[in-house]
Amino acid sequence: MELSERQKSIIEIVKENEPISGDKIAEHLGLTKPTLRSDLAVLTMTGVLDARPKVGYIYSGLNFEPLLHDQLFETKISELMTSSIIVFPKTSILDATTSLFMYDSGSLYVTDENTGDLLGLVSRKDLLRSLLNNQDNELSVAVIMTRMPNIIVATPEMTILEAGSLIMKHEVDSLPVVEEKGSKKVIGKISKTRIMQHFIMMGSERNV
Amino acid sequence: MELSERQKSIIEIVKENEPISGDKIAEHLGLTKPTLRSDLAVLTMTGVLDARPKVGYIYSGLNFEPLLHDQLFETKISELMTSSIIVFPKTSILDATTSLFMYDSGSLYVTDENTGDLLGLVSRKDLLRSLLNNQDNELSVAVIMTRMPNIIVATPEMTILEAGSLIMKHEVDSLPVVEEKGSKKVIGKISKTRIMQHFIMMGSERNV
Repeated sequence: MELSERQKSIIEIVKENEPISGDKIAEHLGLTKPTLRSDLAVLTMTGVLDARPKVGYIYSGLNFEPLLHDQLFETKISELMTSSIIVFPKTSILDATTSLFMYDSGSLYVTDENTGDLLGLVSRKDLLRSLLNNQDNELSVAVIMTRMPNIIVATPEMTILEAGSLIMKHEVDSLPVVEEKGSKKVIGKISKTRIMQHFIMMGSERNV
Repeated sequence: MELSERQKSIIEIVKENEPISGDKIAEHLGLTKPTLRSDLAVLTMTGVLDARPKVGYIYSGLNFEPLLHDQLFETKISELMTSSIIVFPKTSILDATTSLFMYDSGSLYVTDENTGDLLGLVSRKDLLRSLLNNQDNELSVAVIMTRMPNIIVATPEMTILEAGSLIMKHEVDSLPVVEEKGSKKVIGKISKTRIMQHFIMMGSERNV
């Protein structure tokens, strides 16, 4: 559902002149009140305008409710991604684990030292497994990392719904965000934490 | 925004008689078509009904869009919680880590062997830190767990918005769900993963 141009004009008129009667709104638009009846019904029923008897229409301050779906699910990863923690293949398991704690991150991305291309991914779980198996902490992360092409990546153009579906489907904690489809240049990270935060913040804002 | 009784009746009439003209709908209700103009405008604009020229009104199969907010954010934790993995204070760090892998869980809840009361929580991060510090794997989890009352809990009556806000605020991966406020009886878990899954599934369903 999208608002018509006329409905958007009505909202602007109310914002500037509230409280304002239906007759006055019609006057502003050079139309008759009956012509506006459906528009005013839609705007009051969707909560954008408040209709107060004997006072007039008031702007409720609410966004247009049906836009909620788009704001929630169609937001691009480019607007949501956070910075990623990068290590190199020769970084030791010990140093990698230290970085993980230092940045309180759930996973580290392993890139080629020269090209910057994504080579692998090391998660908290990978490190835990390695330490549990008494693997030498001085071994390089290259030994334990999940390797390309077995890593699911996101692109900045993906929606939160697409990236979230991939995270769920592949049961991972985050996706490296690469420049574009087919690229191996990591430009950020989209995590479960960030996705949940987006939804909870959207929900909280609307309850204020 | 809530639908009026008349709007709900219109939806039922369309469902049973689609495609149906506005005149026919008015006839069903014993009203005139102009009387229904606002209602039909609201129902078509919110996407509940499709208006096809020269055919009539058709039910789109969509739920009423503004209900989205409630479905998304007001769902109770009782409907969302998953089962928790329980260990006892004397469980060794090694056995706890093994359980964590076996159940692919992000955290373990430590309860009193006799009373079942929540005593502590051990996360993947706690176990990783312990192994990194070369702590004896045979030590009990009681040594490394986060202890009550420093654990944030959820109750079945909380909404997903409340529980999600707590998870964000306290930067944890999950909350133990206890029977009721003040209780220490663990009845489940609400995790970041489960919360994200709820939102992504709601978004996916609506896009079908």
